Amino acid sequence: MIVRPRQHWLQLLLVWHGSVLRHILFRLGLNGALAIFAVCLMPWLKGHGLELSTAPFSLIGIALAIFLGFRNSVSYDRFWEARKLWGGLLVASRCLLRQAQTLTGRAPTDPAVREFCHLLVALASVLRHQLRHSLASPAAQADLQRLLPADLAAAVARAQYPCVRLLRELAAWVRRQHTEGRLSEVAVQSMDRNLDELTLYHGSCERIAATPIPYAYSVLLHRTVTVYCTLLPFSLVSAAGVLTPVVSVFIAYAFMALDAIACELEEPFGTEPNDLPLNAMCLTIERSLLELCDADSLPLPASPDRFHVLD
Amino acid sequence: MIVRPRQHWLQLLLVWHGSVLRHILFRLGLNGALAIFAVCLMPWLKGHGLELSTAPFSLIGIALAIFLGFRNSVSYDRFWEARKLWGGLLVASRCLLRQAQTLTGRAPTDPAVREFCHLLVALASVLRHQLRHSLASPAAQADLQRLLPADLAAAVARAQYPCVRLLRELAAWVRRQHTEGRLSEVAVQSMDRNLDELTLYHGSCERIAATPIPYAYSVLLHRTVTVYCTLLPFSLVSAAGVLTPVVSVFIAYAFMALDAIACELEEPFGTEPNDLPLNAMCLTIERSLLELCDADSLPLPASPDRFHVLD
Amino acid sequence: MIVRPRQHWLQLLLVWHGSVLRHILFRLGLNGALAIFAVCLMPWLKGHGLELSTAPFSLIGIALAIFLGFRNSVSYDRFWEARKLWGGLLVASRCLLRQAQTLTGRAPTDPAVREFCHLLVALASVLRHQLRHSLASPAAQADLQRLLPADLAAAVARAQYPCVRLLRELAAWVRRQHTEGRLSEVAVQSMDRNLDELTLYHGSCERIAATPIPYAYSVLLHRTVTVYCTLLPFSLVSAAGVLTPVVSVFIAYAFMALDAIACELEEPFGTEPNDLPLNAMCLTIERSLLELCDADSLPLPASPDRFHVLD
Amino acid sequence: MIVRPRQHWLQLLLVWHGSVLRHILFRLGLNGALAIFAVCLMPWLKGHGLELSTAPFSLIGIALAIFLGFRNSVSYDRFWEARKLWGGLLVASRCLLRQAQTLTGRAPTDPAVREFCHLLVALASVLRHQLRHSLASPAAQADLQRLLPADLAAAVARAQYPCVRLLRELAAWVRRQHTEGRLSEVAVQSMDRNLDELTLYHGSCERIAATPIPYAYSVLLHRTVTVYCTLLPFSLVSAAGVLTPVVSVFIAYAFMALDAIACELEEPFGTEPNDLPLNAMCLTIERSLLELCDADSLPLPASPDRFHVLD
Amino acid sequence: MIVRPRQHWLQLLLVWHGSVLRHILFRLGLNGALAIFAVCLMPWLKGHGLELSTAPFSLIGIALAIFLGFRNSVSYDRFWEARKLWGGLLVASRCLLRQAQTLTGRAPTDPAVREFCHLLVALASVLRHQLRHSLASPAAQADLQRLLPADLAAAVARAQYPCVRLLRELAAWVRRQHTEGRLSEVAVQSMDRNLDELTLYHGSCERIAATPIPYAYSVLLHRTVTVYCTLLPFSLVSAAGVLTPVVSVFIAYAFMALDAIACELEEPFGTEPNDLPLNAMCLTIERSLLELCDADSLPLPASPDRFHVLD
Repeated sequence: MIVRPRQHWLQLLLVWHGSVLRHILFRLGLNGALAIFAVCLMPWLKGHGLELSTAPFSLIGIALAIFLGFRNSVSYDRFWEARKLWGGLLVASRCLLRQAQTLTGRAPTDPAVREFCHLLVALASVLRHQLRHSLASPAAQADLQRLLPADLAAAVARAQYPCVRLLRELAAWVRRQHTEGRLSEVAVQSMDRNLDELTLYHGSCERIAATPIPYAYSVLLHRTVTVYCTLLPFSLVSAAGVLTPVVSVFIAYAFMALDAIACELEEPFGTEPNDLPLNAMCLTIERSLLELCDADSLPLPASPDRFHVLD
Repeated sequence: MIVRPRQHWLQLLLVWHGSVLRHILFRLGLNGALAIFAVCLMPWLKGHGLELSTAPFSLIGIALAIFLGFRNSVSYDRFWEARKLWGGLLVASRCLLRQAQTLTGRAPTDPAVREFCHLLVALASVLRHQLRHSLASPAAQADLQRLLPADLAAAVARAQYPCVRLLRELAAWVRRQHTEGRLSEVAVQSMDRNLDELTLYHGSCERIAATPIPYAYSVLLHRTVTVYCTLLPFSLVSAAGVLTPVVSVFIAYAFMALDAIACELEEPFGTEPNDLPLNAMCLTIERSLLELCDADSLPLPASPDRFHVLD
Repeated sequence: MIVRPRQHWLQLLLVWHGSVLRHILFRLGLNGALAIFAVCLMPWLKGHGLELSTAPFSLIGIALAIFLGFRNSVSYDRFWEARKLWGGLLVASRCLLRQAQTLTGRAPTDPAVREFCHLLVALASVLRHQLRHSLASPAAQADLQRLLPADLAAAVARAQYPCVRLLRELAAWVRRQHTEGRLSEVAVQSMDRNLDELTLYHGSCERIAATPIPYAYSVLLHRTVTVYCTLLPFSLVSAAGVLTPVVSVFIAYAFMALDAIACELEEPFGTEPNDLPLNAMCLTIERSLLELCDADSLPLPASPDRFHVLD
Repeated sequence: MIVRPRQHWLQLLLVWHGSVLRHILFRLGLNGALAIFAVCLMPWLKGHGLELSTAPFSLIGIALAIFLGFRNSVSYDRFWEARKLWGGLLVASRCLLRQAQTLTGRAPTDPAVREFCHLLVALASVLRHQLRHSLASPAAQADLQRLLPADLAAAVARAQYPCVRLLRELAAWVRRQHTEGRLSEVAVQSMDRNLDELTLYHGSCERIAATPIPYAYSVLLHRTVTVYCTLLPFSLVSAAGVLTPVVSVFIAYAFMALDAIACELEEPFGTEPNDLPLNAMCLTIERSLLELCDADSLPLPASPDRFHVLD
Repeated sequence: MIVRPRQHWLQLLLVWHGSVLRHILFRLGLNGALAIFAVCLMPWLKGHGLELSTAPFSLIGIALAIFLGFRNSVSYDRFWEARKLWGGLLVASRCLLRQAQTLTGRAPTDPAVREFCHLLVALASVLRHQLRHSLASPAAQADLQRLLPADLAAAVARAQYPCVRLLRELAAWVRRQHTEGRLSEVAVQSMDRNLDELTLYHGSCERIAATPIPYAYSVLLHRTVTVYCTLLPFSLVSAAGVLTPVVSVFIAYAFMALDAIACELEEPFGTEPNDLPLNAMCLTIERSLLELCDADSLPLPASPDRFHVLD
């Protein structure tokens, strides 16, 4: 995610990094070349009756608007739902940790509370790596070692559904407090409800990651945009004359960029500049939970790189 | 559902399987033939004053955009709601199985827990076959035999509403734990709430399967798109000349494909390539629940066929 | 509701019953006559400078698109919300009946359970008749006699808000189980929560039935569509010549049919072909609940009439 | 709210009361005069090169469609959310009154139940008057005197947030039942949850009433529509000739009426014909709650006035 | 937020403060200058074939409509969600304070209740300052001193996540009531659920504040609008002649103003005239909670400044 301070409107015209221009430059170049070709060919085409007006293009525009508008809003909804789920993860973790203190009557610095806190931090970390397909990475393994007892870390590392394993461990902690007489039946229910919430957030993230936008949409959208942009210069020639390349590239830019953004946001858990900053969000969860345990020192917050990107 | 790895934009232009092109090829051919006919007939038509400009077509475009946009978003909402319901089924099953362990204090490998796990897996399997109208298929029967005691399997196979029968069985399991002193009143309530959730997900899937988009919409949409595409070549002739067939087929493709996708997504529980992969999702539920019971071995995960289709 | 098996696209062009064509045929005829009149009058109009181009019609199209799109999506949302509420009614009834068995420890065939089941079936039946303003019909009275004790049936028949009366009766049943020592405080709470759900579904159906789409929208929409379609032939004359009647009727058909569908869906509890099949849904509720009580025989399911209409 | 029986489509063209035509008649007249002026001035304007085509107007149409469509759907959403909240108020009141009987075991006609019922009716009445800024009106005071004990009526009349005061009183009633041994801890929780619901509905109504649509939108919309309609006749002159006044007034009507409806619905708690009928809804709440207490007689239901308006 | 009484439609044309005109005046001036330049240059451009018609501009209009409509509705959704969250904060605070009285059986004026009330007011105040990045301001510090015991005020001032600290303090208060025998297990659960709600509202506000609309959208929108408005005068010249500057500035105004509003609403917690009035909302929370504690005097309500702005 890119977190630039507000910019002057002139700066926004010239920015390179983080915009999607770099993804579509090649195709824009092709379009420009085609437009120059169309301008040169115009007299010959006219002579052979191979002229196109812009009228058919406003007809196809209806279908294109539906495709693009739909794809765009679906992609953004996926992005925003994913963001809400991670927000919910933070909220449910805070609620559980608060309950682990005030319902059990344990002090914030109690080792049992700290253990529970580490389980919650590990859950966020494992979910992040699962969504980014980096469970086997050294960073993921280091987090497990750092936060969990050795045997549990090994079990989680082996599991096919490691988050489910950790959720069971959280529930087992609650159970232990109950058998130790620290938590009443009713208090167990309160924490259990929040464990259900965590399970829901985790399962919903899995759902978004596992279910792409129906493939037929991607195919149709690419075909329609590509054919549209290819025919465009030939139809603009009569309306824009020698200015055709400028106008054609501008129109193609708008359509292709819209397509490219939707493509980036569609998979919100990726690592492209406009995706969700899962690393930074995990760090926020860790910092907030540790502070809630009155930890002596907190890890430093994530800060954007020189391109203003949080990953 | 089609799960292709991200493709180059050139590949997306040429893909055949999984796109909806194969459904509409015949009608596109008709449209092309009509367009060639219109080009040949043009001089004669002009001579008799039977000319059409493109102007009326942008007027009808308003109604068409509303129809298509509406149908499209309704179909996708049905698809996505169905996906969410199956996601919820997985989540509620995990929550119940976790509760069956930590609220009763039973070990993950306890036979009673395993029995409960099998009931949950059977529920997903039966729901899948009910939604695909394949309850009488050998696969469905085999699942019942494999997962349930013989008499319960027979009762479920006989039932008109087999999922409701299984939900009662799950509740009966909870009741037994309570009478055995394993579950307190409050813990019964926690599990009962999740049984309500399961009932809701099941009932909502039934609702989507039983209630198509109002019939009058389908009729209107088909009529409008068909008449539109039929008249289109005659109106394009004056604007596109000999290029009419290319332009007409392209526009018709966009409208018909949009219609065809909506038609596929509208019934998300079907077996067409863009429908939900109920088989794969049932397998995920089984794998996740078995692992949560510390099963020794898990069934292999579903993998897409050579056309990248998960069913 | 119309539940036709999937049709060939050619069939969809010719269908009569269930489409909204029959509602608007007269107005379409008027529009055609006007268009023929416009074609004949054209030379005279031209001579007197009373010509219209299509340009102003694309301007008004903006407003029309907003009106129609808005009305259309609001109507469908009302239809779909109503469908969800009836789905919720089924789900909550199933949950309550399951609880009435497993929380009280009563057998499915226990008379008390059967009594509770009948109360739930009666609730659905009364709600249906209330929404269709047929509470005084013999069918409604017969249902009450069949399902309820005589004095309760009489009380419900007299009541201004009969569903609220039945909900109190359901709660009284729960209370009796509690005083008999069959239900603990906590179990009463579980069932009470589902009674709240039922109250919500009932109240929400009442809301939809009692609150039409704001009247000013209907007026504006009718006026705009009517004036638009009346002026249309005169503006099409210059663009479509002798083809004006064909094009004008086609465009008028699209707009008027969209308006007519919205009108039918707006009141989803009516008895028109595209409305909700309340009778069939009540029968489903009865069948599902009776099976859950292990009833010996179930009533036959509803089947569509020869026009594929479920009522 | 206007509740007319379904009308013939011809009637809808001519209706005056309840439509928004009366709000915009003056501006429509101005527009017509301007159009006549434009027709007369046309030759002179043409001679001085001050001609406008309709082309720029379809460009501005994009922005206008976004503005109007957005304003329209936001206004309707406010209207419909407000309606849902009042529906929720009725539902929560019914639930609470049912609980006050079946959880305490009190008879419907018990004085304590009747007292609780009156508190709920008073809450609806006070909320209505708060939203319509008529708390000091004699009708509001009379309701308080009629429904509440004298000292409570005085306290509520003095309060800045009278609904919050009444909600505390409802909670105090619940508390009294508990201390009298009529309600268990768990039953108190059930009723407390519904009190939370009431607090939510009340707070949400306050939110809608206190937060208008951002002011900048109103300004922009008015400016754009006004400038658009003012320039319109001058651009239509070339396309519609002497028919300009008819066409211009028709287009202006559509845009201005859309704006005027949105304006009325935006504040759903007002007293204009298309606003919510708070008086009738309060009466429904009172009737339904009294019947639930087996009251001997109910107040008469609200009936629309001769213009079919419920207030 | 601007809370003007309803204005005459003529006034709305001329308003300056609170509209977004002041943000875009410079760019509109540039656009006007460019248009005058285009009119003068027209003959020369025509001579060199550098003419543009308006046709390409209606093609790009599709993309622009999607961008602007999308940005606009996303920004408003953020604004309205933020408003709902603050409404929820008020509701949950009222519920908790009501519970603190009626579940514990304490009088409204009890010091413990007053202490709880102050914690809730402090929470709203701290959240406001956190969202506006003014935690270190004297006003924020004064609020802490005024409402909290000295050591807690210091701890909150030091904390990285001060709201989480206060939520733990609220839970500790509930815990104390429980250990003092004032609150049963079940009542603790009721209050704990509302603490979860508060945590959710707080976390959701943090989410909106921390996650801007994806940066690529802002870039694309600015580029498209700017290039569009820059080319516009050159294409209008042929359609509008010497009226080009008027028409061009009008169109540019509509697009740029739409962009500017979206920009303001996007960050709803800011201090611009169309942002949420967090100060006034905190004051409402304080007044309502104090009255619920039967405080002797309430602070004065916030009143808009002379520009009708509530901050």
